[in-house]
Amino acid sequence: MNVSTEQLFTDARTHNGFTAEPVSPAQLRQLYDLMKWGPTSANSSPARIVFVASPAAKERLLACMSPGNVEKTRAAPVTAIVGMDMAFFDKLPFLFPHADAKSWFMGNKEFTDSTAFRNSSLQGGYFIIAARAIGLDCGPMSGFDNAKVDAEFWAGTSVRTNFICNLGRGDRGRLFARSPRLPFEEACRIE
Amino acid sequence: MNVSTEQLFTDARTHNGFTAEPVSPAQLRQLYDLMKWGPTSANSSPARIVFVASPAAKERLLACMSPGNVEKTRAAPVTAIVGMDMAFFDKLPFLFPHADAKSWFMGNKEFTDSTAFRNSSLQGGYFIIAARAIGLDCGPMSGFDNAKVDAEFWAGTSVRTNFICNLGRGDRGRLFARSPRLPFEEACRIE
Repeated sequence: MNVSTEQLFTDARTHNGFTAEPVSPAQLRQLYDLMKWGPTSANSSPARIVFVASPAAKERLLACMSPGNVEKTRAAPVTAIVGMDMAFFDKLPFLFPHADAKSWFMGNKEFTDSTAFRNSSLQGGYFIIAARAIGLDCGPMSGFDNAKVDAEFWAGTSVRTNFICNLGRGDRGRLFARSPRLPFEEACRIE
Repeated sequence: MNVSTEQLFTDARTHNGFTAEPVSPAQLRQLYDLMKWGPTSANSSPARIVFVASPAAKERLLACMSPGNVEKTRAAPVTAIVGMDMAFFDKLPFLFPHADAKSWFMGNKEFTDSTAFRNSSLQGGYFIIAARAIGLDCGPMSGFDNAKVDAEFWAGTSVRTNFICNLGRGDRGRLFARSPRLPFEEACRIE
């Protein structure tokens, strides 16, 4: 499928308002079927996602959001809770079948936790770019009560919430002015 | 610039061998000038990158790599050390000028550390996709001695290494068979 770097990076914006245009289950599958191919350490693929689409589920989520994030989350057709499976290693016999990668992680909580956090966040980057690739706009957020979201949406599992991202067709009239980025010389060097 | 989702996701692979084709400083700038636009929390943009290109710098890096990562890192024309500035909040008056975002982080080490790790990893996802967008192949790695890399490349700074990524033109003849991904039903649900 053809896309452009303008659509993915240079013209894309974080959206705070969304039109009423719906997001279909087929689009959510298309999004996942792109992002899942992004690389992770030992193919660990720790990200787990709840797509909050129904009004009832949205109300449960709104009760967990910081005040400044409630209205835009209510307006978004779908809100994705991007979680990380802290027991991702249980799936390594399927995901990484050519070595006993599960044994690298079992019983090493610090290594496991950092691997889950780093790689589910990498997958969060793939998620945002993949959403833009299929024509959706994103509104990623960190302002919510993690413990409440975990209790509402991941109870009885080994998944914990990483971040939350509104999805839909953004209303460009409600964008803020774009903030600057660091110049190459401040963020990078070549040795 | 036109790209395709095949180039970015479905046909792209993690590479273990690279051709001799060089990577120019102009390409590294082009890569950064795409990835920098990806969203981060409060526009915090904590990622910092050393592009290791010279033979002398490469030797210093090779001494820090796990044995299984030495030869492929030697073969790559450029290896990127993707770091995270744990004092990223010092740049928020420039990056997020419309609020006193620096005060949200100062003195809150747990919040600051998790923000740096999550958002530099998100930027790692943007980095990998942006590299593919400009025609480079990636070989991201977690197998290295973090303390040694930090001492060699980030001494005297507040930056710590997140992950390392080889860059170049991949040698598709040296690819392993592709590992599977979790089906939608195992990684996602719609509520």
